[in-house]
Amino acid sequence: MERIITLTTDFGLRDEYVGVMKGVILCRAPSVGIVDLCHGIRPHDIRQAAALLDASYRFFPKATIHLVVVDPGVGGNRRLIAVRADNHWFLAPDNGVLTPMLDPKRFQAGFILQCDHLYLNPVSATFHGRDMLAPVAAQMAMGLNPAQLGPPLHPEQCVLLPQVKPVVDPERGLIIGAVVDTDHFGNLRTNIARSMLALLAERHDPMNGTTIIGTHSIHGISDSYDSREPGAPLAIIGSRDTLEICVNLGDAARLLKAGPNARVLVKAAAKRPGPPPRG
Amino acid sequence: MERIITLTTDFGLRDEYVGVMKGVILCRAPSVGIVDLCHGIRPHDIRQAAALLDASYRFFPKATIHLVVVDPGVGGNRRLIAVRADNHWFLAPDNGVLTPMLDPKRFQAGFILQCDHLYLNPVSATFHGRDMLAPVAAQMAMGLNPAQLGPPLHPEQCVLLPQVKPVVDPERGLIIGAVVDTDHFGNLRTNIARSMLALLAERHDPMNGTTIIGTHSIHGISDSYDSREPGAPLAIIGSRDTLEICVNLGDAARLLKAGPNARVLVKAAAKRPGPPPRG
Amino acid sequence: MERIITLTTDFGLRDEYVGVMKGVILCRAPSVGIVDLCHGIRPHDIRQAAALLDASYRFFPKATIHLVVVDPGVGGNRRLIAVRADNHWFLAPDNGVLTPMLDPKRFQAGFILQCDHLYLNPVSATFHGRDMLAPVAAQMAMGLNPAQLGPPLHPEQCVLLPQVKPVVDPERGLIIGAVVDTDHFGNLRTNIARSMLALLAERHDPMNGTTIIGTHSIHGISDSYDSREPGAPLAIIGSRDTLEICVNLGDAARLLKAGPNARVLVKAAAKRPGPPPRG
Repeated sequence: MERIITLTTDFGLRDEYVGVMKGVILCRAPSVGIVDLCHGIRPHDIRQAAALLDASYRFFPKATIHLVVVDPGVGGNRRLIAVRADNHWFLAPDNGVLTPMLDPKRFQAGFILQCDHLYLNPVSATFHGRDMLAPVAAQMAMGLNPAQLGPPLHPEQCVLLPQVKPVVDPERGLIIGAVVDTDHFGNLRTNIARSMLALLAERHDPMNGTTIIGTHSIHGISDSYDSREPGAPLAIIGSRDTLEICVNLGDAARLLKAGPNARVLVKAAAKRPGPPPRG
Repeated sequence: MERIITLTTDFGLRDEYVGVMKGVILCRAPSVGIVDLCHGIRPHDIRQAAALLDASYRFFPKATIHLVVVDPGVGGNRRLIAVRADNHWFLAPDNGVLTPMLDPKRFQAGFILQCDHLYLNPVSATFHGRDMLAPVAAQMAMGLNPAQLGPPLHPEQCVLLPQVKPVVDPERGLIIGAVVDTDHFGNLRTNIARSMLALLAERHDPMNGTTIIGTHSIHGISDSYDSREPGAPLAIIGSRDTLEICVNLGDAARLLKAGPNARVLVKAAAKRPGPPPRG
Repeated sequence: MERIITLTTDFGLRDEYVGVMKGVILCRAPSVGIVDLCHGIRPHDIRQAAALLDASYRFFPKATIHLVVVDPGVGGNRRLIAVRADNHWFLAPDNGVLTPMLDPKRFQAGFILQCDHLYLNPVSATFHGRDMLAPVAAQMAMGLNPAQLGPPLHPEQCVLLPQVKPVVDPERGLIIGAVVDTDHFGNLRTNIARSMLALLAERHDPMNGTTIIGTHSIHGISDSYDSREPGAPLAIIGSRDTLEICVNLGDAARLLKAGPNARVLVKAAAKRPGPPPRG
């Protein structure tokens, strides 16, 4: 089985940028498999890229090399790093985009790229994805020992994104979170994880509560889009295992006029009394 | 020769959705070839996806597996199906998107997916393309006997799109059809097939008639875009073997202010008398 | 190592056009690697495609086959050609898109496509990329001798784009060039090459001069985007080895309200006297 390299960038697809990175890789690793994970990251949006990578990498085979080029500091003094986490490899600028991989629960090893002999010559001032990261990814796919890339990386010396986590109040059955992203369909993806809803479930009934965004109240958490009328808003646990606010056959971002950073409040319902415990 | 899996979705390319489906496939079928057929289907537009698939599948090798995820009913009670037609395989929701493949002239075999052991665990409520269809496609590419996917499918029990066909009047030399789609260039693609024009040719001359859309009349059917002046509208038999209304070096949808469902009338010219038949 | 075919088109990604070309190729060359170089060329923009190809091909392995379908004259009497240049192969309409490859310094061999037996049957009027170029590319990847494609091509009989080169005045330390393209980030790419700036360096100091576009003056040529404040315009040598006008963390095209054909003036600074030459 050949190694896989995934590409995640904010390049879009109107220029040659993605294509030439693939050329650079294929010159050095002709049998590698290259997969476009996403090139639609908003320009310079490190946070969006980190979340997308976090939600996606585990669907690829172990040992996949994930190359991330969202790099507003290109040409400056930010470092390039290689990180092994959860048995995958990640290559990216040290600008916070690998924050989820630097978590001690996942981080396994890391190196600071100092391997001029692997880079294209000359290296441009504006495209280190092509000139530095792509050839390094190719060499790693060909079996290069990552320890040869440069000195060891200490995660605590890396740039980390501040984590914005919801407030969870199991006593009162409340979660205060936020929209983190809208997708192509206009679904509003929040930072409220299924596991947070589960924390409410001991004393409350989160699946029959209310989700409030702006002036809109949505009753319950649905099992499918079509559990509501076409055009009606609904809340659902989405494919990232987080709460999403959607519209059946419609566009929630447009209908609810909401987007990233909008506040989302979940109020769990009172728990219906079950049978008394046996004694 | 490795098997090929094509992907057709309404996901667009700004999220991780397409990328993670590829990851799921490659985990299970590392040597399969994955081809993006199209991810630009308008959200939830089953009709557009059906037409695109119908126009495209035959350009791929026999036995290709075409995976279609235009699935507004995801998580509801619609079924997932596998269909063999014209020696290709198709995997999709049973929502009409495979209507052209369920035609008795093409349909060869089909199965209703009931194969929990192949799916990801857990299965999300919103992304069965990733959690169910992608792993099934991968297993089929690896040689799984499709009869193991579930019970046989009876095409007459499937959801079918209503077919909107043009009115063809060979006596009067008339076809009344409609625009079904506009492409990236603004070409207006109609449901008027070359074979329908041929039906007029016995008594009339369709190639020298008039095509009428809105208030615009176009004389004749052209052999190439540049047979007209830059900026001039023209009618031509396009790459789907249907009549298209185009503008040389321009955008017909914008110039003619027309789009899907616009009525298109073809009036064939009178046939010029040929030499009398020899007796 | 398998051969690689790259695809460059103005098709965009909302239709089946790119996908079916890949199907046609894979039917004939199942083990070839297909790379999307770019499908975001503006419709019919031969000049943009030529520049993109010129900037990109060398990042791919030697003997790669670059298929270019920007073909407003499809179905008319323009020829299709195969060109070998700088040890790469190019397949395209003879409409100027291969101008950089027909330069005597690069051109090595060429053929006019006359190989009906290789084409799809029938050939459509509007999609020769699918019906003619794709099958030819596949056969070349499978080892077909290109001399079998048709008669030899004489570059001097080909359609060439007029070259718009900057005026370089080393005496006065001036270059008058133009914006040729904007990229996804809004960077303004000019036709002023690094080598032209070097020509000024003998008598002047181009790196500390002024770049003027519209009413904006930018001091110096930067080494990195973040050498300026966020939101500030800057000039930098970009990834095509040409001068680009950019905005740190911003969109220069939008901020400076400039685009293709905008005039760009570089005025080199006076050279600071160095130490007198040793005698």
